Amino acid sequence: MSHIPIISFVAKSGTGKTTLLEKVIKELKNRGLRIAVIKHAHEFEIDHPGKDSWRHAQAGADIVAVSSEDKFALIEKRQKEMTLDEIASRISGVDLILTEGFKKEKTPKIEVFRSEVSSQLLSKPEELIAIASDVRLDLEVPCYDINDASGIAGEIQNYISNFSMN
Amino acid sequence: MSHIPIISFVAKSGTGKTTLLEKVIKELKNRGLRIAVIKHAHEFEIDHPGKDSWRHAQAGADIVAVSSEDKFALIEKRQKEMTLDEIASRISGVDLILTEGFKKEKTPKIEVFRSEVSSQLLSKPEELIAIASDVRLDLEVPCYDINDASGIAGEIQNYISNFSMN
Repeated sequence: MSHIPIISFVAKSGTGKTTLLEKVIKELKNRGLRIAVIKHAHEFEIDHPGKDSWRHAQAGADIVAVSSEDKFALIEKRQKEMTLDEIASRISGVDLILTEGFKKEKTPKIEVFRSEVSSQLLSKPEELIAIASDVRLDLEVPCYDINDASGIAGEIQNYISNFSMN
Repeated sequence: MSHIPIISFVAKSGTGKTTLLEKVIKELKNRGLRIAVIKHAHEFEIDHPGKDSWRHAQAGADIVAVSSEDKFALIEKRQKEMTLDEIASRISGVDLILTEGFKKEKTPKIEVFRSEVSSQLLSKPEELIAIASDVRLDLEVPCYDINDASGIAGEIQNYISNFSMN
């Protein structure tokens, strides 16, 4: 298990999860936190065709890394998908890890809910730190408006404070 | 120090270092080796504007990671450039690390030399495992033709064998 608190943002697609997450990241950054965000993807391209690192990967490199004064990037071919714990073990120097996706992992979650998209929650209430919803939900979980990034950020800060006391 | 052998390809720009490196990677892959390549860059962009991971980084995330079934990527903002040892400590599961650049580090080197571009070597002969050159150089270091990826790959394999015996 990671020693850094991890919270997963989960939602059905089309809910506006990435937009909310962007706002929450900005809020948390303004409060002085260092943040990592892990995204689960079915497939993705991240490098640019023709760049040296892309050429190395095309030639057969299993891992390509690029380092400059202000940035470090690493792209690794995998035989098997990594677990969230494996990914978290690659991350250090941050106060918090947020994830997008990883619904099936047992990490505490914030569910983003939009009544036009879903009729019920993806998560069990006991997994949830908070809900961001366009309608009021009658549950024993703090429920914020889907645009209330400040409220959600506050709930995350509470969670971090309790995490570091444990 | 890394427990994985590291060899740096160094050259003046315009020598065709990346092209040779591509060929050498292919040769080594065909011989069954797992390879990481680290590139030093003055600045670089690797993610695509508009992608979720890009949006997270723009919003202020210090680290963004993306994971799929067959790939893992991580991009990290840095206050200070990482040393080659720091980068190597992030890499596992490969038989060999090749680098492009990092002239000033004390790793063993292969220098790519083209007589139209340079009049003398960048490296001290004692740092060199081999030279890939368009002209014959009179040195106590194995000198291969600049297109002889197979010869260079063989020299790298020798180096790895000796490395693992130490």
